[in-house]
Amino acid sequence: MTTATTHRYKLRLAYDGTAYAGWQLQPNATSIQEVVEKAIATVCGERPRLHGSGRTDQGVHARGQVAHFDLTTQRPTPRLAVSLNAVLPADIRVLGLTRAAANFHARRSAVGKEYRYFIWNGDVLPPFLRHYRAHVRAPLDVLTMRAAAAMLEGRHDFAAFSANPNREVESTVRSVTALRVTRRGKEITIVARGEGFLYKMVRSLAGFLIRVGEGAVPPETARDILASRLRTARVPTAPACGLFLWKVWYRSGIINAQ
Amino acid sequence: MTTATTHRYKLRLAYDGTAYAGWQLQPNATSIQEVVEKAIATVCGERPRLHGSGRTDQGVHARGQVAHFDLTTQRPTPRLAVSLNAVLPADIRVLGLTRAAANFHARRSAVGKEYRYFIWNGDVLPPFLRHYRAHVRAPLDVLTMRAAAAMLEGRHDFAAFSANPNREVESTVRSVTALRVTRRGKEITIVARGEGFLYKMVRSLAGFLIRVGEGAVPPETARDILASRLRTARVPTAPACGLFLWKVWYRSGIINAQ
Repeated sequence: MTTATTHRYKLRLAYDGTAYAGWQLQPNATSIQEVVEKAIATVCGERPRLHGSGRTDQGVHARGQVAHFDLTTQRPTPRLAVSLNAVLPADIRVLGLTRAAANFHARRSAVGKEYRYFIWNGDVLPPFLRHYRAHVRAPLDVLTMRAAAAMLEGRHDFAAFSANPNREVESTVRSVTALRVTRRGKEITIVARGEGFLYKMVRSLAGFLIRVGEGAVPPETARDILASRLRTARVPTAPACGLFLWKVWYRSGIINAQ
Repeated sequence: MTTATTHRYKLRLAYDGTAYAGWQLQPNATSIQEVVEKAIATVCGERPRLHGSGRTDQGVHARGQVAHFDLTTQRPTPRLAVSLNAVLPADIRVLGLTRAAANFHARRSAVGKEYRYFIWNGDVLPPFLRHYRAHVRAPLDVLTMRAAAAMLEGRHDFAAFSANPNREVESTVRSVTALRVTRRGKEITIVARGEGFLYKMVRSLAGFLIRVGEGAVPPETARDILASRLRTARVPTAPACGLFLWKVWYRSGIINAQ
């Protein structure tokens, strides 16, 4: 019996995506992954690869992104979280840091995700929310948005609600376990839960629901669009700034107790 | 009988003060007053002076700043508001625009103001609030903060709670009609209402109340500090980013019906 030579850590992150080219490492642009990897390197003296639960696009935010990384040395996690926040910029924060089992994988172990899409449905977007809300001036009818959302819940081929579906190698069938639309004053929130989502799928669902709410498209079209499997102008991509990766779920047991 | 040759307009503004050198016009720095005056000039073809209800410092926000200006031509106000928002940057918004009586003055006619000071009292400041909250990690005792606030309510000489009191020509006596401290989860809000406030007075009151909440200063010191009329290190100035000019009150009747 030998003990493991690496120690796996699980991070829960919140970030304001406004200033970043998205989650994923890329040349000639600053990504959230790069900034967090560099913070780990500064604090720990080694630079492990950071594995996120999934990518978020340029301008998309996270309130509960999850990622894992390995270190060759064991470190007390509360202090490591404080140290990382001390070197990270204020628009990226470590909300939690725990030890994880060697077989925990932020992407592969995830069993569900929740995204929230926020719309400010009023004449004037408050300046404090300008990076965090899609602004729709025309009054949206939440009841018809709900009717369309109900047709999109469940297991469907979402090719028509994904960007570049032809470049997807794997199946475009996904299970949306919940797609809910609520209004509170001028704020409309779309909650999307599922085991996984295609590229730009949540923003496409939001873009379609906004068109339905404006009365531009009847809610029943949801079924036809799903059946068509064709991405057309009927499904615009809603702006990145309204989207938050809200939560990632894992099977209990796979996450090591802290 | 001649009709007035100018038409007075009253603006209600919200702004994110992060990117500005404050409300007031100044050389070599961009002020909110300047940006709004330029927007009026772009839309109206004339550049009147914009008179605010008062200054806000660099980094201070407003949810309800009030200002007035005069135009030589009469304009339909709903359309003028939309036009101004179309040329203003997203961090400055016109929330309301109405005609005002010729004797209405945004500063001189004001009978009261409300400021709100927001503190995030937790380990990690959410990235989305980083420009809008003072971050205090040490747990604050809201009950002792309230005890101190109660001693500061009423009519007092607030010289000890103002920056540069010696440069004040007029009296440093002010009436604070309300100074309330509330907590909701990790967020602590200080509501300060009064007929008027001295320079940096609300941030000084907030800075003192934070020290009291930390247990660094007993609440009773409030009385001694007031009596001393001396600004000392016991009263730090809380960060600008936590402060919002929330509301300005006017005598009813002085504002022309729209």
